[in-house]
Amino acid sequence: MSEIVFDFARQDRIGIAEAVFCAGKSVAQIAAILDLARTNARAVLLTRLEPAVLQALPGDHRDAIDYCAVSRTGFFGAPHRLQSRGEVAIVAAGTSDVPVAREAERTLRFAGIESGFIADVGVAGLWRLTSRLEEIRAYPIVIAVAGMDAALASVLGGLVAGTLICVPTSVGYGAAEGGRTALNAMLASCAPGLAVCNIDNGYGAACAALRTLSTARRLHGTPSAPRPQAEAGGGNDSISERPTR
Amino acid sequence: MSEIVFDFARQDRIGIAEAVFCAGKSVAQIAAILDLARTNARAVLLTRLEPAVLQALPGDHRDAIDYCAVSRTGFFGAPHRLQSRGEVAIVAAGTSDVPVAREAERTLRFAGIESGFIADVGVAGLWRLTSRLEEIRAYPIVIAVAGMDAALASVLGGLVAGTLICVPTSVGYGAAEGGRTALNAMLASCAPGLAVCNIDNGYGAACAALRTLSTARRLHGTPSAPRPQAEAGGGNDSISERPTR
Amino acid sequence: MSEIVFDFARQDRIGIAEAVFCAGKSVAQIAAILDLARTNARAVLLTRLEPAVLQALPGDHRDAIDYCAVSRTGFFGAPHRLQSRGEVAIVAAGTSDVPVAREAERTLRFAGIESGFIADVGVAGLWRLTSRLEEIRAYPIVIAVAGMDAALASVLGGLVAGTLICVPTSVGYGAAEGGRTALNAMLASCAPGLAVCNIDNGYGAACAALRTLSTARRLHGTPSAPRPQAEAGGGNDSISERPTR
Amino acid sequence: MSEIVFDFARQDRIGIAEAVFCAGKSVAQIAAILDLARTNARAVLLTRLEPAVLQALPGDHRDAIDYCAVSRTGFFGAPHRLQSRGEVAIVAAGTSDVPVAREAERTLRFAGIESGFIADVGVAGLWRLTSRLEEIRAYPIVIAVAGMDAALASVLGGLVAGTLICVPTSVGYGAAEGGRTALNAMLASCAPGLAVCNIDNGYGAACAALRTLSTARRLHGTPSAPRPQAEAGGGNDSISERPTR
Amino acid sequence: MSEIVFDFARQDRIGIAEAVFCAGKSVAQIAAILDLARTNARAVLLTRLEPAVLQALPGDHRDAIDYCAVSRTGFFGAPHRLQSRGEVAIVAAGTSDVPVAREAERTLRFAGIESGFIADVGVAGLWRLTSRLEEIRAYPIVIAVAGMDAALASVLGGLVAGTLICVPTSVGYGAAEGGRTALNAMLASCAPGLAVCNIDNGYGAACAALRTLSTARRLHGTPSAPRPQAEAGGGNDSISERPTR
Amino acid sequence: MSEIVFDFARQDRIGIAEAVFCAGKSVAQIAAILDLARTNARAVLLTRLEPAVLQALPGDHRDAIDYCAVSRTGFFGAPHRLQSRGEVAIVAAGTSDVPVAREAERTLRFAGIESGFIADVGVAGLWRLTSRLEEIRAYPIVIAVAGMDAALASVLGGLVAGTLICVPTSVGYGAAEGGRTALNAMLASCAPGLAVCNIDNGYGAACAALRTLSTARRLHGTPSAPRPQAEAGGGNDSISERPTR
Amino acid sequence: MSEIVFDFARQDRIGIAEAVFCAGKSVAQIAAILDLARTNARAVLLTRLEPAVLQALPGDHRDAIDYCAVSRTGFFGAPHRLQSRGEVAIVAAGTSDVPVAREAERTLRFAGIESGFIADVGVAGLWRLTSRLEEIRAYPIVIAVAGMDAALASVLGGLVAGTLICVPTSVGYGAAEGGRTALNAMLASCAPGLAVCNIDNGYGAACAALRTLSTARRLHGTPSAPRPQAEAGGGNDSISERPTR
Amino acid sequence: MSEIVFDFARQDRIGIAEAVFCAGKSVAQIAAILDLARTNARAVLLTRLEPAVLQALPGDHRDAIDYCAVSRTGFFGAPHRLQSRGEVAIVAAGTSDVPVAREAERTLRFAGIESGFIADVGVAGLWRLTSRLEEIRAYPIVIAVAGMDAALASVLGGLVAGTLICVPTSVGYGAAEGGRTALNAMLASCAPGLAVCNIDNGYGAACAALRTLSTARRLHGTPSAPRPQAEAGGGNDSISERPTR
Repeated sequence: MSEIVFDFARQDRIGIAEAVFCAGKSVAQIAAILDLARTNARAVLLTRLEPAVLQALPGDHRDAIDYCAVSRTGFFGAPHRLQSRGEVAIVAAGTSDVPVAREAERTLRFAGIESGFIADVGVAGLWRLTSRLEEIRAYPIVIAVAGMDAALASVLGGLVAGTLICVPTSVGYGAAEGGRTALNAMLASCAPGLAVCNIDNGYGAACAALRTLSTARRLHGTPSAPRPQAEAGGGNDSISERPTR
Repeated sequence: MSEIVFDFARQDRIGIAEAVFCAGKSVAQIAAILDLARTNARAVLLTRLEPAVLQALPGDHRDAIDYCAVSRTGFFGAPHRLQSRGEVAIVAAGTSDVPVAREAERTLRFAGIESGFIADVGVAGLWRLTSRLEEIRAYPIVIAVAGMDAALASVLGGLVAGTLICVPTSVGYGAAEGGRTALNAMLASCAPGLAVCNIDNGYGAACAALRTLSTARRLHGTPSAPRPQAEAGGGNDSISERPTR
Repeated sequence: MSEIVFDFARQDRIGIAEAVFCAGKSVAQIAAILDLARTNARAVLLTRLEPAVLQALPGDHRDAIDYCAVSRTGFFGAPHRLQSRGEVAIVAAGTSDVPVAREAERTLRFAGIESGFIADVGVAGLWRLTSRLEEIRAYPIVIAVAGMDAALASVLGGLVAGTLICVPTSVGYGAAEGGRTALNAMLASCAPGLAVCNIDNGYGAACAALRTLSTARRLHGTPSAPRPQAEAGGGNDSISERPTR
Repeated sequence: MSEIVFDFARQDRIGIAEAVFCAGKSVAQIAAILDLARTNARAVLLTRLEPAVLQALPGDHRDAIDYCAVSRTGFFGAPHRLQSRGEVAIVAAGTSDVPVAREAERTLRFAGIESGFIADVGVAGLWRLTSRLEEIRAYPIVIAVAGMDAALASVLGGLVAGTLICVPTSVGYGAAEGGRTALNAMLASCAPGLAVCNIDNGYGAACAALRTLSTARRLHGTPSAPRPQAEAGGGNDSISERPTR
Repeated sequence: MSEIVFDFARQDRIGIAEAVFCAGKSVAQIAAILDLARTNARAVLLTRLEPAVLQALPGDHRDAIDYCAVSRTGFFGAPHRLQSRGEVAIVAAGTSDVPVAREAERTLRFAGIESGFIADVGVAGLWRLTSRLEEIRAYPIVIAVAGMDAALASVLGGLVAGTLICVPTSVGYGAAEGGRTALNAMLASCAPGLAVCNIDNGYGAACAALRTLSTARRLHGTPSAPRPQAEAGGGNDSISERPTR
Repeated sequence: MSEIVFDFARQDRIGIAEAVFCAGKSVAQIAAILDLARTNARAVLLTRLEPAVLQALPGDHRDAIDYCAVSRTGFFGAPHRLQSRGEVAIVAAGTSDVPVAREAERTLRFAGIESGFIADVGVAGLWRLTSRLEEIRAYPIVIAVAGMDAALASVLGGLVAGTLICVPTSVGYGAAEGGRTALNAMLASCAPGLAVCNIDNGYGAACAALRTLSTARRLHGTPSAPRPQAEAGGGNDSISERPTR
Repeated sequence: MSEIVFDFARQDRIGIAEAVFCAGKSVAQIAAILDLARTNARAVLLTRLEPAVLQALPGDHRDAIDYCAVSRTGFFGAPHRLQSRGEVAIVAAGTSDVPVAREAERTLRFAGIESGFIADVGVAGLWRLTSRLEEIRAYPIVIAVAGMDAALASVLGGLVAGTLICVPTSVGYGAAEGGRTALNAMLASCAPGLAVCNIDNGYGAACAALRTLSTARRLHGTPSAPRPQAEAGGGNDSISERPTR
Repeated sequence: MSEIVFDFARQDRIGIAEAVFCAGKSVAQIAAILDLARTNARAVLLTRLEPAVLQALPGDHRDAIDYCAVSRTGFFGAPHRLQSRGEVAIVAAGTSDVPVAREAERTLRFAGIESGFIADVGVAGLWRLTSRLEEIRAYPIVIAVAGMDAALASVLGGLVAGTLICVPTSVGYGAAEGGRTALNAMLASCAPGLAVCNIDNGYGAACAALRTLSTARRLHGTPSAPRPQAEAGGGNDSISERPTR
């Protein structure tokens, strides 16, 4: 279909493979992209893939997708083999923020990064956060996912030292304004240096984490990360497990 | 001036005297109101009284005003004699929030209530708040004043048990949206039961505290509060000092 | 399910038990929370529980829920035994505001507080309000629920002396802006000391009332309120019925 | 100046003479319009005429202007001779709303209509309004001027039977949103049939009243209103004084 | 049902009977109101009555309703007998604005007023408007209904002399912002004296027209309008047919 | 100054020379740009050049600027020699829109295009527009400049056949929302094919006209337009005067 | 149906035939318009025609419609015979923007213009755009269709010389704000002379292109374009194929 | 002054020293903070320090401040000794964005980081960016500063592999909406993984870069960065100069 020009070069260019954002695309368009991926022997990540759309895909495409209903993500082809653990923590304020947090987790996993996952630690019960603070601080990169007032982001911003990527969610109603309040609160945080993503954009937060991992490798001489491959997922024999400190 | 109908009955009706909101009023209008107050032997509180407007008032009026430049409030006539201590704490997130917090403090003082004042305890340095938490929790009413992300309100909301009155401030820029973000974050807080006032409305927060004090007296049999009187400010011989617990 | 960290300590900490806000949570998540509550022998309040979600819950959970379709609230386990009457009035401007008002009523009842309920007294027919004004003024705490122009809040604000908690509703269309106009009108009210909650947040208004009741007890020496218990609802033999004055 | 095409035919066409909205016009442009008016022997109303702009006008123009500093309006040439009394009441909620209310009053007076003026009757002290309600109800047309929550408009809307023209003002701060909240509250009023004008648009409200007076004359056979004339203002010998009923 | 206090006195007080705004009310609430109306032998107008809600009403109620699917209005009981013709024109810019325009027409008819109806005369084809301009100008009251840019309102405002009531509609997309742009354009119109109603509020526009008719009667001695009666609709033997001029 | 990289190639690339938008630039930055222009023997157009900034420029720069105070534009160096007449009309709704309209006129003149200028033809007096309609229709490109309701744009959109470039202005107050209403009304116009520019962007409208002229030349074989030159402005011996038809 | 006044004269007046915007119109209204078109022997373009509405039309109407499901457009009657190629390019940033782009393409085709179509060249992979830049630059008119950040428009604005018509789309979520961000970015573009249309308004963009083609013909002597005719679509024997340069 | 609780522990806790945001603070408050810093022998960074405020500070404080008028920043005490070069590039789209970009540069310099600075490379002249692309790509961290459409951020996002921190600026007018459009465009970018800061927040962008540098050191074993010291700025003998690759 001439309407599609997949950016297969993106992985080499910026270290992040193009993903397929399925919302707003027709089933025919998604199928055409998957045909293209198969022809090029590429694995692709699908985001915002509704169950109904998954069901409407051609059977062979559908069968080739490892689907997660919570995050509405699919792996078409094998994700990258596991490459590291302990580098990125995903911290979600409430139970309702979990789908967005899982989207970030799955995006990282597709790229070979296994992240820590800590949920329901919103500041209305501060002990829930403080009881796990040392665990969170052990990660050099933290993704904070929160809706409503997003106070979790500011509290974390004053307590953790490394990269803090913030994802506002559309959780809440009325004055939460579909996530706009959480977004603005993160942007206007009293804590310095927060990196903010779009509302509900777990995928983008994971990509920002990948960029930071890429920066770290470039700054300190680690060889560049391997790319996801369609032909092989695989064992985690060679992953770099970062000791917490 | 026939354009003015001062609501002197308000104190008796709802327990809060009408104050003069000076912003947007001409000097002539303010002077006419003060004439009226003098004629009726009433003390009045003036809010949002800019120094330039104060200077433009007739000399005898100006001299009769106890002015506070930080909060831009004036007492015209003697405030109510001191009636209680230790019932209301005012907690300000940052140094820039102090003018609004002081407006609340002065409004309460005019009504005979001496409040506690705790400033610069924003959550970017959480230790600043936790180190004073027991002190704050000792007050049955807390007024939280915060701009930008207003995360202080949510954190307090999860930690204090009594009435929590929240005042967003217009401190901040960009995504702070002139206080709208702080306002929305307080309204959409993950902590339950926050009572929210208008942006920069320290006066309104104090009035909400006065309403709660009135409720408490009605619920538990204390005789109703005396009114501010123009003829006498006075000693604090008979104030009820609430022991912290 | 590791995604859930229920804040059972909240009742002891701030006097308000954590409730389950069901909107945006999956059936599986809600069921897991109820399992946790049962294991801990706790009663919990469920809000924004749609009938379809109720039906989708496991049968034993569903049967244990006392459901109110108007307010979309459920009591899982027995609510607190009745503790007081006559302390809180809920005043709704129009018929369409009733669901939000009932959410407040049910939240208070779950905590052992029986409130007065007065509906359809909007200011378009002022006689409806004035004919019941004495009744409303007898309550030391008033929750005003109104959409559209929310003029009821300002009129009450000039007439009642105690705590006035205002809940804007999303009733109306066009310039009502989904409740934003009612919210702003309450915040910018010409009457002083209104305490405002989020749009449609009947639950939050009830919590604000609980905080004020807690403040009143602390200020005047009443022992602290007992907690809701799963094992026993019960008679109202010992409630404190406040005489109207 | 070829940039100006004054619509002198407007009075004949729609019964309202074109006025000069001075904000945003240069002194040179205003002077050119006044030259044109003089040449055509027309009186014109100037609105939003700041004192500094008045001072910058050529002396003969300045001297020909009857200026009102409160409403920032000027009559260039004689206004229409007095034509009626008792047909239009202007009701302002607060002292700060007076400038807008006076703009309406002056616009009506320029067109020969003397209006009643009732100020500072906002609903925070409802007695102020009810004590003058019969007086207000005697007018078949009421212009309500209010900022902040604009609750006055809804209360009046439920109490007066005739045309109710509402002017929101930019009085207030924060959630008052520069008059947007008052505007929306008037538009979304629970009282039916309110006719709403732009924020601070006292001129427009007066014009709406003129349209209604024109409608009344057409419906019931009264000859059409005479036009303002530059050559003669004059006595009020022949005005129709409407008896209150 | 104690949640309902119908304002039957409204007709006598302000000349407009309370109508039932059905959106957001439950079927049970609407049925209870109709019971009340029947008991009091009153006819009532129902607005925003969706077909599905109509079908869900008890059969005897449903059968008593004269329903118009285009405007989603119902007459429960007989409307007022026809009282006048030729006083009010309803002018709709486009075909999509017709439902709102018909709501105004039906509201007027319920009150005994037969209006003229002129549709699809938007300014994109100015000849459509100019070809009917004389007809429109013959009416002393014009209701202009328009969405998108609402330019029709401004053009009419410069051409018709009497009361011009403007109803913005939510027709359009994108920058039309659900009717907000039409609303603002009407409020900020370059033509003077437009009276603006809420978005899609055909009912409110009709009520504003009724207020103007009431004003006209009061100003010029016509006896007050009879009320709608449940027992009798009736012939139009005595209507006042205004000759166009 | 290394902060400046002037895009001198823009004229060759897209047919429009880079202009200097002076608002928000320091005097030092503007002076550095002019130095660069002089060094490269280029004429440049300056927009949003406030008189105070002009005065603060070095004397030789200031003297080299042909300044227009109404439009706040300056020609630094000679504008392009006159190249055509009668191709572009600039139509301004009101007197207050003139500064923006003049910015468009000056931008076109700098590029060698002399435009027609027609002001104060807003639709509140439709005769003003219709009396000049044939004149306007004679131009193949029309730039419509209007604030407030911007109804002029829609009316023109239904009457002229060629390119219609619309510039909303920030003229108006309240619901005019700083030009946002005019902008949205133009975007949501009922007339088809309007090309809309940013608020107050007379410069941009002129550039859009230049693009259309370039398109016309490319489509129909006219050689490309010469560039402005610093060394020569000059006579209009060779301009193409388009006969009106 | 008297609610419809089709503007058949529009083609002659402004060179663009009135199209039927089907969203918000009832099936009965659309059918009545088609009846009218048939009676007048006119072909009409239908936009925003949902498949369900198409199915609900009378069979003979439905059969007469050449429907495109992607763009939701229908040709009722034969489109204009092909008149030119190579004049207009439609460039879409992403796959999700295709429906809007196709609406533009179909609108042009209905008017006899065959456009070039280039999709999925968004700037996240700049090579996709640069690899086709020469092709795009060969067209004297470019329609850029983009959602989210709409960066494609600015990049093209700096690279192409002719008319650049920009259509923001509602593609995206959160901070994309339903297309408002793309719209604003296009309006505030750093590249000069962009002509912007309403969100998702492919039809309007095509009309703007038609206006520019009309301008070009008028400027350079080409006879005016023939009109679409119901009786004949037809061969492309006489089309003007513009050589790319 | 008891209103100030400086968070001196912040550097140790999160690696970023508390800075003094001067906007909205009184001169007395700033002076008190500087007293505190001097007493504690700490250097502090001051941001948003207007020249007038600087002049109003006590002389010894003023003299101790190394002030930059472009960025409105001050170093009170010696900044950290130079620690690295070549790690962070600051890329500004236009000349007007320079003040914000310089704030980022100064913040980094205060912390010992010397950044690259590349200005006026906006996409309206894409060659300006491409001609320096290799230089930019050599930096593992890029801070992109842009206003208006912020298209630079998206273009860079598709071309650079490392951390990309985006700062929207308030440069522009009308639809630029004070930076909100640039902010939203960056958040909704078609390029993945952008980290966005508040409008005009150069300070925050620098802090986000510091967090990423901290992450990189933690991930790859570099010892933690030394802190700024008041007693010594000093030579750059030991800095780590990263070779570009």
